Amino acid sequence: MSTAAWTRPDGGSDPIPFRTAAVLGLGLVGGSLARDLAALGVRVLGWDADAGAVGGAREAGVISASVGRGLEGLDEAEVVILAVPVDVTRHLLGAVAAAAAATALITDAGSTKAGIVRAAEAAGIGSRFVGAHPLAGDHRSGWAASRPGLFRGARTYLCPAGGATSRSVATVEALWRAVGSDTMLMGAEEHDRAMAWVSHLPQAASTALAAVLAGAGHPRTALGPGGHDTTRLAGSAPSMWTPVALENAGELVPALKTLEAALARFRGALARGDRSAVEAFFARGRDWFET
Amino acid sequence: MSTAAWTRPDGGSDPIPFRTAAVLGLGLVGGSLARDLAALGVRVLGWDADAGAVGGAREAGVISASVGRGLEGLDEAEVVILAVPVDVTRHLLGAVAAAAAATALITDAGSTKAGIVRAAEAAGIGSRFVGAHPLAGDHRSGWAASRPGLFRGARTYLCPAGGATSRSVATVEALWRAVGSDTMLMGAEEHDRAMAWVSHLPQAASTALAAVLAGAGHPRTALGPGGHDTTRLAGSAPSMWTPVALENAGELVPALKTLEAALARFRGALARGDRSAVEAFFARGRDWFET
Repeated sequence: MSTAAWTRPDGGSDPIPFRTAAVLGLGLVGGSLARDLAALGVRVLGWDADAGAVGGAREAGVISASVGRGLEGLDEAEVVILAVPVDVTRHLLGAVAAAAAATALITDAGSTKAGIVRAAEAAGIGSRFVGAHPLAGDHRSGWAASRPGLFRGARTYLCPAGGATSRSVATVEALWRAVGSDTMLMGAEEHDRAMAWVSHLPQAASTALAAVLAGAGHPRTALGPGGHDTTRLAGSAPSMWTPVALENAGELVPALKTLEAALARFRGALARGDRSAVEAFFARGRDWFET
Repeated sequence: MSTAAWTRPDGGSDPIPFRTAAVLGLGLVGGSLARDLAALGVRVLGWDADAGAVGGAREAGVISASVGRGLEGLDEAEVVILAVPVDVTRHLLGAVAAAAAATALITDAGSTKAGIVRAAEAAGIGSRFVGAHPLAGDHRSGWAASRPGLFRGARTYLCPAGGATSRSVATVEALWRAVGSDTMLMGAEEHDRAMAWVSHLPQAASTALAAVLAGAGHPRTALGPGGHDTTRLAGSAPSMWTPVALENAGELVPALKTLEAALARFRGALARGDRSAVEAFFARGRDWFET
């Protein structure tokens, strides 16, 4: 394995332990990662279901070659990163395992990890698979939304498959740190349980609020700055979030129930004019916000 | 009534039709309004329950005199603006009516309007009262959070009391336009009905989400940028929001019920693995976001 020079976000410099990476999926996350890796001197191969994204990434000088429909050329990459919807990742892992027999590391960037890690183990690539989830990005999607520096300062969770080698873990850590992220190792189930609350529930709340405002006939332009922020995530891509929510339904369903119950309790306090309960509701939210 | 020179946000200039204004409550909204009025050459009298806020506003050269505890000195102001919690506004209106007998315009800046407009009518100042609600601000509160330009580009709803004169309406329009806001006349009941959906419901959703995350033991630092935005309003002041929610309970209760139902429907779709219903949920949110 050869090395390219790079500069760490903290100003130090370490060798980035690979020279060629393949990014499958050149949307907001994959496209942004490809941009950062290319800027660090890594040769990037790219693939996307949207030929326009591949063309855009080539024109921008971000990818130097495209991976074929049948994943031809993938074996040139020392690192393969899947940045497609989580259900597509699961389905692709077998083909990736076959096409990238010599690849040192296979990883992804999806919001759920347990199903993907299990699929990697089933595909026989457990020793080379470490799932990743950068807690970055925004509601926009596609190559056009990708940009340099998306992961700077963001936390990236790393979930190794059973049997993943320490070299695989070190390589994926170097990859995400190279683009400015801090990394944290976590079991895949523990990751999914936490994400149901801190990521998937806010997404669901934002979308539900948007759906309700749509039904009541209030456009987004009628909202003030606070309402705008609360509903920003509603702009996220359904193609990305549908499989995330379904994959993590076991954890997300109880979280949703808890949110519904909190809203219902507040509604009850309002209906009976219980000032101290209403005040306690707002105070609890603010206490959490401030600590 | 005398006039001070000012420049309109659109580059034109009109006379601002008053020279002295009193701002009761020097928090985020009142303090920011006082700053902008002072910068426009208006002499600003100020009052706040927090002596520190009054001191800060004096030191900053924003207010030139303070109004007494018993509202002494209020009669010097041609315009009186109440920028205190909505329940305090209702209770203060009688005293303001007595202390500001010669004042041309009495207005406010609260998030609910029907109760306040009724209280103004009951206090016998209907001809001089036009309620106002600038859809601006953020989750922070107090004089320390106030800043110039808070209302630039924001919509301000104006709800005249029964019998309000056209001069009162013209004066309040000039006031809010002078600080860069665009204004829209609306009946107080209609205003409160709309705000239950576009402002009070997002606030409640954000707070409920925060309360639920607190209960599940997840701090705000564990959230990504999307979750941060969704929960930003949870940082709002309970002292401001408790009376708003209680005053508008009649409109907010059905809006909350609708949101709970939307979340429950989504949860049901997840629990039964109904991919097309889950996808339709996210698509509905995004369609609203994009139109």
